[in-house]
Amino acid sequence: MKKVNIGIIGLGTIGSGVYKILKERKAEIKKLYNVDINILKCCDISESTKRKLKIANSKFTKDFKKITRDKDIHTVIELIGGTSIAYKVLKDAILNGKNLITANKALLAERGKDINSLLNKSGKRIAYEASVGGGIPVIGVIEDSILINKIFSFQGIMNGTCNYILSSMSKKIEFKDALNAARRAGFAEANSTLDINGKDTAHKVVVLSKKCFGIDLKSKDIFTQGIDNITSNDLDCARNLGYKIKLLGIGRIFKNKIDARVHPALIRQDNPLANVDNEFNAILINSKNLGPFMSYGYGAGMLPTASAVISDIIRISRDGYKSDVHEGKKLAIFKIDDLERKFYLRIELEDKSGNLGKITNILGKHKISIDKIIQNNENNKTKSVPVIILTKKNRFKIVNKALSALKKLKFVANNPLLIPIEDFIWKK
Amino acid sequence: MKKVNIGIIGLGTIGSGVYKILKERKAEIKKLYNVDINILKCCDISESTKRKLKIANSKFTKDFKKITRDKDIHTVIELIGGTSIAYKVLKDAILNGKNLITANKALLAERGKDINSLLNKSGKRIAYEASVGGGIPVIGVIEDSILINKIFSFQGIMNGTCNYILSSMSKKIEFKDALNAARRAGFAEANSTLDINGKDTAHKVVVLSKKCFGIDLKSKDIFTQGIDNITSNDLDCARNLGYKIKLLGIGRIFKNKIDARVHPALIRQDNPLANVDNEFNAILINSKNLGPFMSYGYGAGMLPTASAVISDIIRISRDGYKSDVHEGKKLAIFKIDDLERKFYLRIELEDKSGNLGKITNILGKHKISIDKIIQNNENNKTKSVPVIILTKKNRFKIVNKALSALKKLKFVANNPLLIPIEDFIWKK
Repeated sequence: MKKVNIGIIGLGTIGSGVYKILKERKAEIKKLYNVDINILKCCDISESTKRKLKIANSKFTKDFKKITRDKDIHTVIELIGGTSIAYKVLKDAILNGKNLITANKALLAERGKDINSLLNKSGKRIAYEASVGGGIPVIGVIEDSILINKIFSFQGIMNGTCNYILSSMSKKIEFKDALNAARRAGFAEANSTLDINGKDTAHKVVVLSKKCFGIDLKSKDIFTQGIDNITSNDLDCARNLGYKIKLLGIGRIFKNKIDARVHPALIRQDNPLANVDNEFNAILINSKNLGPFMSYGYGAGMLPTASAVISDIIRISRDGYKSDVHEGKKLAIFKIDDLERKFYLRIELEDKSGNLGKITNILGKHKISIDKIIQNNENNKTKSVPVIILTKKNRFKIVNKALSALKKLKFVANNPLLIPIEDFIWKK
Repeated sequence: MKKVNIGIIGLGTIGSGVYKILKERKAEIKKLYNVDINILKCCDISESTKRKLKIANSKFTKDFKKITRDKDIHTVIELIGGTSIAYKVLKDAILNGKNLITANKALLAERGKDINSLLNKSGKRIAYEASVGGGIPVIGVIEDSILINKIFSFQGIMNGTCNYILSSMSKKIEFKDALNAARRAGFAEANSTLDINGKDTAHKVVVLSKKCFGIDLKSKDIFTQGIDNITSNDLDCARNLGYKIKLLGIGRIFKNKIDARVHPALIRQDNPLANVDNEFNAILINSKNLGPFMSYGYGAGMLPTASAVISDIIRISRDGYKSDVHEGKKLAIFKIDDLERKFYLRIELEDKSGNLGKITNILGKHKISIDKIIQNNENNKTKSVPVIILTKKNRFKIVNKALSALKKLKFVANNPLLIPIEDFIWKK
């Protein structure tokens, strides 16, 4: 029987969840895993959760050092979010000889290198299953089962807020209303900027790129585009063409470079990610031998994420367990400009004869071939008409250049949308 | 660095795969996992694979005891299939102090109790990731991440042959042609009886019921129905109603009984399992806190399954690793007769006025309410017409009884089909 004494720093949503599940399942976990988990102390700046969970005074502190420097605590669970105080907590814990568990992808993505030096100095361990895909076992699965093989790529729906919004928008609800609905349903925070602009997903791409390929990236290496320019009409058009629009986090080794990006993408209905709707997340990893593997479930929420944290407590207490953060190799960055894809292009035009001809003319000049053009203005009440163009395969750079030329036309509204079509890569 | 000396017994498809991947990835696995895996000896009754893989004479034997009794071998990998010689191999290995890895679900399902006594006697370990879902990490994920929470149910597409056939049939190919296509594509064996009649899936349900619920089942406890009575017209009708037909293996705790069954089921298009097509497998596990989790990938094939076997080699060599087979508790069996579901009922009738009325009359007498009736005889060239009836919720026993009465009618062909509709259970 292994005894693990833990301290929880941050009693927000996930912290409360960890407390609750451990209370409920402590005996069962002991029996199943031979691990006896004891919460020695909890820390928060507010006492509200302490009162709600009826945590004894002797087990509560407002000073995180009472946990990071407690000799009896083996493992510190950092669940306060952000990157400044969270880093101080992590540093103090590791330097004081504690193992560290975190769900903080921003911290891992932005301070990875520093965290790694701290771990090297102390010889202590870190685990972060909850940082990607919330409750979905993905970090552990990569470590235990997938890395046996060479990983070619991952593609994931890794932000529940965005996925919930896009799913709502496919039911003809516009972005702002969908965002508000997501907030009411508890799937979006009051401030969901980092979700919607793709940054949260980019952090997860950094974490997964390290785990899957052993490559050190920074958020700024990752082309990142959010979902706020998408309309429900786009989702409708995409569906009629046999596609869904999803915000994807992508990492792959291509031409000996690392191609890592976050953007909305059109994916075919037969892509296993296409059926991942509402608040659900999924990560599809393609590797040699094993082929495509997908992990699907709740990517956020109190109890799912807390469950992932608890799996880390058990994992980190294993003899010989070792999970590195950043100490990876460098690889040249594959530039988005060089990405060859079919593209979905939506332009809003003044509805006047001849205008569409001018558009196709400019595309032609850039040697962009067109697969399909759709003008769907049935329900349109404004003067401008959205025109959807599916291009044949071309480089992002070329299509983007053509788009700049199009934007200069007086009759084109200045919110065009350019989305790559990502096919399900299940062979290399 | 942990040194693990293994012997492989059975150089069929999976055995060859293990040999190949280890040859390719030995150095990388050593680096990533701190485990140095050495194949000391391989055994097969034929020398053909030995020649193909260029295995040295000194590393090859036709006598499995040269492996199970080799003092230098720590872990024996049994990959010969079947339950008689395979059991002898397993017994000899465990009693001679070896850990055992197997992909053999039939062996686990039918000799589980005996295997468990052997393990208790020897104190040795067993691992069987490859026995369910082929290459898909599922046993390990349940152990490491899901069992932290109380598991309510699992539902899975666990037979690639059946799924490939059903996917083909949804493209208007009839059963026999679909089966032949599956054979040509390498997704069905020459003898695929156990696949098609659902027995293979039932074996996996036994293994998962133990893993998820700790419950000892036997194959005979599991209501098992195969797919050979399904027509491409059924798949077509189901699709028009918003459903797919999949062969599901199901286990759930219901009213303090174990409800374990294998049968074709109608599932809604928004069920994450509905998009699992062709040779792919997926297992959806629903647990408290974590909610629904799905694992998706190749459920068979040389390299995916071999990859799962290798993950077991690493797993079994962990300090403190313990994976039990059968030593579970008993629970009363929930009888299929008591299953309350909506049902899909297909009856072929002589196309004559009044016949349909007689059918609905009999259903009415059994107090079976009807949601929908569809008569789809557009492409029908025979005298009989398939009639599809979707019932409202009712007990299997009642609907089955009505079906017996219907079969007695002279104008009803004797191949009616009765399939439950399984909704996606994502809350308890």
